[in-house]
Amino acid sequence: MLNYKRYQRSPVMVYPERKWPGKEIQKAPLWCSVDLRDGNQALIDPMVVEEKIEMFQYLIKLGFRDIEIGFPAASQIEFDFLRQLVDRKMIPDDVRVQVLTQCREEQIERTFEAIAGCKQVIVHIYNSTSTLQRDVVFGMSRDEIIEIAVQGTKWVKERAKNFPGKIILEYSPESFTGTELDFALDICTAVQRTWGATKEEPIIINLPSTVEMTTPNVYADRIEWMDSHFKNRESIILSVHPHNDRGTGVASTELALLAGAERVEGTLFGNGERTGNVDVLNIAYNMFSQGIDPELNVDKIGETIELYERCCKIPVHPRHPYAGKLVFTAFSGSHQDAINKGVKAMKERNSEIWQVPYLPIDPADIGREYEPIVRINSQSGKGGVAFVMDTYFGFKLPKGMHKEFAKTIQAISEKQGEVSPDQIMEQFRQEYLEKKEPIHFRKLKVDDLSGETTSEFDTRVMVIYTDHGVEKFFEAIGNGPIDAVKRGLQEVIGEEMKILDYEEHALQSGSNSQAAAYIHLLDSDTGTVTYGVGVSSNITRASVRAIFSAVNRLGIGTKK
Amino acid sequence: MLNYKRYQRSPVMVYPERKWPGKEIQKAPLWCSVDLRDGNQALIDPMVVEEKIEMFQYLIKLGFRDIEIGFPAASQIEFDFLRQLVDRKMIPDDVRVQVLTQCREEQIERTFEAIAGCKQVIVHIYNSTSTLQRDVVFGMSRDEIIEIAVQGTKWVKERAKNFPGKIILEYSPESFTGTELDFALDICTAVQRTWGATKEEPIIINLPSTVEMTTPNVYADRIEWMDSHFKNRESIILSVHPHNDRGTGVASTELALLAGAERVEGTLFGNGERTGNVDVLNIAYNMFSQGIDPELNVDKIGETIELYERCCKIPVHPRHPYAGKLVFTAFSGSHQDAINKGVKAMKERNSEIWQVPYLPIDPADIGREYEPIVRINSQSGKGGVAFVMDTYFGFKLPKGMHKEFAKTIQAISEKQGEVSPDQIMEQFRQEYLEKKEPIHFRKLKVDDLSGETTSEFDTRVMVIYTDHGVEKFFEAIGNGPIDAVKRGLQEVIGEEMKILDYEEHALQSGSNSQAAAYIHLLDSDTGTVTYGVGVSSNITRASVRAIFSAVNRLGIGTKK
Repeated sequence: MLNYKRYQRSPVMVYPERKWPGKEIQKAPLWCSVDLRDGNQALIDPMVVEEKIEMFQYLIKLGFRDIEIGFPAASQIEFDFLRQLVDRKMIPDDVRVQVLTQCREEQIERTFEAIAGCKQVIVHIYNSTSTLQRDVVFGMSRDEIIEIAVQGTKWVKERAKNFPGKIILEYSPESFTGTELDFALDICTAVQRTWGATKEEPIIINLPSTVEMTTPNVYADRIEWMDSHFKNRESIILSVHPHNDRGTGVASTELALLAGAERVEGTLFGNGERTGNVDVLNIAYNMFSQGIDPELNVDKIGETIELYERCCKIPVHPRHPYAGKLVFTAFSGSHQDAINKGVKAMKERNSEIWQVPYLPIDPADIGREYEPIVRINSQSGKGGVAFVMDTYFGFKLPKGMHKEFAKTIQAISEKQGEVSPDQIMEQFRQEYLEKKEPIHFRKLKVDDLSGETTSEFDTRVMVIYTDHGVEKFFEAIGNGPIDAVKRGLQEVIGEEMKILDYEEHALQSGSNSQAAAYIHLLDSDTGTVTYGVGVSSNITRASVRAIFSAVNRLGIGTKK
Repeated sequence: MLNYKRYQRSPVMVYPERKWPGKEIQKAPLWCSVDLRDGNQALIDPMVVEEKIEMFQYLIKLGFRDIEIGFPAASQIEFDFLRQLVDRKMIPDDVRVQVLTQCREEQIERTFEAIAGCKQVIVHIYNSTSTLQRDVVFGMSRDEIIEIAVQGTKWVKERAKNFPGKIILEYSPESFTGTELDFALDICTAVQRTWGATKEEPIIINLPSTVEMTTPNVYADRIEWMDSHFKNRESIILSVHPHNDRGTGVASTELALLAGAERVEGTLFGNGERTGNVDVLNIAYNMFSQGIDPELNVDKIGETIELYERCCKIPVHPRHPYAGKLVFTAFSGSHQDAINKGVKAMKERNSEIWQVPYLPIDPADIGREYEPIVRINSQSGKGGVAFVMDTYFGFKLPKGMHKEFAKTIQAISEKQGEVSPDQIMEQFRQEYLEKKEPIHFRKLKVDDLSGETTSEFDTRVMVIYTDHGVEKFFEAIGNGPIDAVKRGLQEVIGEEMKILDYEEHALQSGSNSQAAAYIHLLDSDTGTVTYGVGVSSNITRASVRAIFSAVNRLGIGTKK
């Protein structure tokens, strides 16, 4: 029995004046990576220093300008790592390293030792403010908790005066989502005043959902309430730092952006404590998909995945938005068919704008061009198989043929699961191109009789073929080579047949290209139909091969 | 360069009358599992029939009453699977199997062949309604698209009349998120009327986000708009079917529930096309964590994961909400410390309500009791190590000792990554319990002199010990055994020392239990301090061992 009565509803607020639901995301926020801090701390095997340096440099390449590198006062490794970055001059002038510290004097002192030589640093102080933590962890009153934050601010301020570089203060009322709003406002305002934040030298106020506790709209309400209640608002950069406990970290962040947040702290692929921090790439790609510049260089997702999995030793899930192996994959027949048609329509219309059903973005735009979108399993339909034959091998199967061939593939997939493109092509070869029993076309001679006769049968063919391995030949006339070959075959097989349809196309561009011919053939005696396919650099030969392929598929070549 | 200009903003709506942001989720929706349909179709290796049957039975066990079993008219496997369920009488009377079909007569006919013998069936018809699909896939007008749905409804209605069981109609305007709202309303209303839905025999209108295209608040706006514009609203069960392309499927669903949705179609762990369908378990656990009965039997998550990974051959990610291996894990020192204190406070207060920082729910409540919450890596602090020593081995280290011992463990973790509880205990043994060089306590005799003397030194001890392996002994008096042993050791070592603190506790309950003693010792000459620890079933012997342990740790036993 599920003991749900042990839990309480997190309070929501009565806030009818909210404006965020009517807004739209217009531009990218200021991004801050916390991969080296929240991300790293939650790994079974945290990064070694070489991995940290690689990650740091890659974050810069991605376009992050605020990068939290750790908690140097609490960890010797992180202290040493920062010293390496400084000593080896690895911090570009426009990058602000961010360091976390508690509001304790010895930690702040040590933090300043760690940042010596940096041009600009975000010193990020925090203390826990939630009702629960004040009670069970600290046993302190509101005023005592405020005093911790104010005292921490003073300690940073004293040291910032004599620091040669620039110090930006960031304050987080940690466990904000469990904190009464009026108290959160009071403590942030106390820090803001103590620091003396101005429009020119603003403070970063960071409102984390350290633990997600409500539906994302409630977080947005809280952010908007804070945003609209701050005094001297222009002296604040309003930052959010969402986690993902309820699986709604991305949504919380997006709604918080609607609600007034200007800065987002998060990690690549949502690494971080427990369910992780918010995935900044996911948000960036969401913006991208709506035509908004995400202001991150996220056009090579494969490279990002490779680095991430190697440094963090944690996999990207196959269904992870934008990044997972399966997310640009369509197994279902109707989806495949619609994608097929959407891509075709875009090409035909020469459209600059991406609009394809079931594919929110073009995977090639984020560096995923070499992956198959359409994959074939037992759930796939004719559209998918046709798509594979076209995109991989250049065979544009006639519409009527889709079902016939897909049936063969479905039978295989029902046995074995996914069917690879190569296997589909192999099957196509066996079923159509190399259907050479019992009759196998060998040679053809075509004579144009149009100068010699007034009959509509102005084409004569001589065909050499084998029947059960024995070489034979026939001669026949018709109104063209296909017609003549069909008539000749009728004679030698002794069966009426009718060509229902015929299509032919080049397999590659260029005049020396091979052509594929498709013949839709009816056995008039039995009423059965099939397609036959032939390939040749000579279009006539291709179509004759297609007729032979169809005859063999119908099995009528054996009846004689 | 990221080609974001290739994409367009999905339209939002001006809808200031929205009410959903002021609402709260009050109760569980009607759940519908689409694991056997959307989930299965998107697997690299779709389930074989035995796996399908196992999944079907497990879904029933979880409490699902609506279960979409497939698209029998399009897939022989799914047809056969349904026939098996019927023939083997595996469908309980209160379970409604749901079958998907396009609005085509031959498919509907075949669907009714598949459901023969079922007591109640949801026949789920759909057609694609989005602007884009009407244009590039179908090339049809609005009226023509409506006609498809209406005609499909009629075909189902005709056959429903003669069907011995009960037929419930479900209609989905597929690609709803890309459909103009007025058109979505028109087509749903046309189907509703054609079917003749009533309050007693309602129709299920299912509004999918087949592809997530906007922030979740826009989906909620659209659901609320539909909800408030339907005529004869009580004849409709409003269902949602969200996908997760933007990573906000759970949020979209939760906001849709605020906006009026009554039924949710989704899958276990969010399996499904591309990024997957919405994860119904995630939503259920979110409800659970707020004290709402999720109306699903989700109290054994380990069992669910095992079945899912086996049948679907797709992993649950380590950070997946509620289910991932790492989500109830705290690596960070301050988190560990707060969890520690929170659990303690709950015990002390005998609280029925779960309230622990950084742990939204008690993992034991969903069947995850045997996993370690606190794990130790190089990012962990003293709180975590103390937590492990307490919860795994029963040693309640004095607060002052946390830092001293954690330092040793951090040094190891900085080299090797995660440190296991057993390794921590082994280190504790080496560093404290078995610190027997150079002096090693052997035997003790205590005489109570209180009857013989008026001095405060009323306890005499005789201690046998080895020094560099050589057996020695001393006799000493003091105001108790600890004091006497300390004085005796001062004599033989020739060094002043002071006992700063002393703690002792039983390691297990019961009078025959072992006790652990902790001595905080100062070397008065050098000013260095350390803890020593001793264990014995005799509390005096335990504390004497602790003194020897501390002396050896200080290294002063070697100075003589």
